Amino acid sequence: MRKLINAPADVVSDALRGLAAAHPFLRVDPEQRVIVRGDAPRTGKVGLVSGGGSGHEPLHGGFVGYGMLDAAVPGEVFTSPVPDQILAATTAVHGGAGVLHIVKNYTGDVLNFRMAAELAEDEDIEVVPVVVNDDVAVEDSTYTAGRRGTGATVFVEKIAGALAEEGGDLSAVAAVAREVNERSRSFGVALTSVTVPAAGEPTFELGADEIELGIGIHGEPGRERVKTMPAAEIVDAALTAIDADMPLSGSEVLVMVNGMGGTPLIEQYIAYAAAADWLAGHGATVARPLVGPYVTSLEMAGVMISVCRLTPELTRLWDAPVETPGLRWGR
Amino acid sequence: MRKLINAPADVVSDALRGLAAAHPFLRVDPEQRVIVRGDAPRTGKVGLVSGGGSGHEPLHGGFVGYGMLDAAVPGEVFTSPVPDQILAATTAVHGGAGVLHIVKNYTGDVLNFRMAAELAEDEDIEVVPVVVNDDVAVEDSTYTAGRRGTGATVFVEKIAGALAEEGGDLSAVAAVAREVNERSRSFGVALTSVTVPAAGEPTFELGADEIELGIGIHGEPGRERVKTMPAAEIVDAALTAIDADMPLSGSEVLVMVNGMGGTPLIEQYIAYAAAADWLAGHGATVARPLVGPYVTSLEMAGVMISVCRLTPELTRLWDAPVETPGLRWGR
Repeated sequence: MRKLINAPADVVSDALRGLAAAHPFLRVDPEQRVIVRGDAPRTGKVGLVSGGGSGHEPLHGGFVGYGMLDAAVPGEVFTSPVPDQILAATTAVHGGAGVLHIVKNYTGDVLNFRMAAELAEDEDIEVVPVVVNDDVAVEDSTYTAGRRGTGATVFVEKIAGALAEEGGDLSAVAAVAREVNERSRSFGVALTSVTVPAAGEPTFELGADEIELGIGIHGEPGRERVKTMPAAEIVDAALTAIDADMPLSGSEVLVMVNGMGGTPLIEQYIAYAAAADWLAGHGATVARPLVGPYVTSLEMAGVMISVCRLTPELTRLWDAPVETPGLRWGR
Repeated sequence: MRKLINAPADVVSDALRGLAAAHPFLRVDPEQRVIVRGDAPRTGKVGLVSGGGSGHEPLHGGFVGYGMLDAAVPGEVFTSPVPDQILAATTAVHGGAGVLHIVKNYTGDVLNFRMAAELAEDEDIEVVPVVVNDDVAVEDSTYTAGRRGTGATVFVEKIAGALAEEGGDLSAVAAVAREVNERSRSFGVALTSVTVPAAGEPTFELGADEIELGIGIHGEPGRERVKTMPAAEIVDAALTAIDADMPLSGSEVLVMVNGMGGTPLIEQYIAYAAAADWLAGHGATVARPLVGPYVTSLEMAGVMISVCRLTPELTRLWDAPVETPGLRWGR
């Protein structure tokens, strides 16, 4: 196992120390494992909390800041955060207007966020959960009942964060978060496996000329293993799967070509070129592109494509200023 | 070879199409292989041109835009751009105030930029070259006489770009570029090898428990191969090498912890935590940190640390607004 770590048990706490040192506008509690905006709680502002297993950086801690999340709770690598941790984040960002929980659809995450919400309500904090389940690859996977939550989480956090920043109330922020999720789909492809530090061995084995279509962001099984293909065919497989579930023709879309952690940027741009061609050839207009590693799976090589069918209001909120370690523009 | 590409011969042109499609504020000429700011040439502004082999993205094309480069010229993967290409970029950005060439110290790059400068001078364009040679790992390497140019290129492009944006003349912009290079050092470590698409085989072989200290960004040999070490020891090796060459105690520094392409962000933050500890323990103050993949070597896993000893003026220019695909803030 060749990883740039000190010890498997220290991965998350060491990374949190690094995040805290590099971004002084965040308040990072390395004991509780909570990352909070420096100016939280903001009176009258809906608080946004998300989180999940570590290993997907910059998701979620890298999206804490102006115009996006108020707090993030990282679990151990590929492991759900615990209710107390989620409760601490919820309490820390509650400014009197309630808190939105943005939860990727993995059974442990859903249960632990639900438990934290109940605890928060005991403290008179109103919490509304929104579950992200955009991955069209499979129904019911290793850690999931229903669809997995993956790339659209970035869209939900950005767009709901923008509405909260401009003063939207809890029901409006929750509604736009649900709308983004409903209008978004993702599909991922792995070119290599991934090794969880504590396990020390690859999560799955791929043959030297194999790739896995529909991979999950923890290395969960996808739809099928196939022989290596050119980038344009990999992109075609992903967008065809998305389009079969949510027809894209005639839509203006936000499209993210997301490197999974071990794929270099030059390859992500090659995939984006193929995606732009595919979408143009299928009657969709790319209104907003995003290319880069935003939802990773440790050092997995591969790509995920996420598409959101925009409306003028969603586009406006996407374009709104954001200032986080992972996304930054317009401010 | 599991890469997200269509064909080895198409890697650079496909990636350029993707870059062009994703960033409409850039003008990308896929034939000439020149990436130019949409508003170039700007009358009276010094033009900044850089470039080099592809495979190091976002360097250099991802640093074209407001406050940084006016143009970039990507060669084939790990191969110098050609003089005609550099000349085309130089001509495209010349607004009457001359052009700065920022050249990483590789023999082919230096020769081809020099030839392009001579051709440009035949067209009455004043060109000043600045050679970046910050890598303390080795003197004279596979492609280099003297030290290699690596991570400090980001510092030079950002800081010289800021001065050019505010109207600095050619000699002032060249002087600050040289000053940044002189005050900067880098050292890289590889955890895995790298495969050039056209070669199809790893550039070098590392044993399962080996890493290479002082690696070059094309997989050129470093100082030594050693057994895998904890992240803190890897960072110690890098910073000790830098500090031996340019003592850091008492300095305010800009420090970049740079993922080499295949190293996930969580590991980069672990390395940054170790770097921040090391610097604090050796009497240096981190005034500005930068964590992320900025100068990559395709899918190589590893990390490079770059340090610049700041002055108040260099800090001011580093903080100035920038709007490029790869670096963006303050605007």
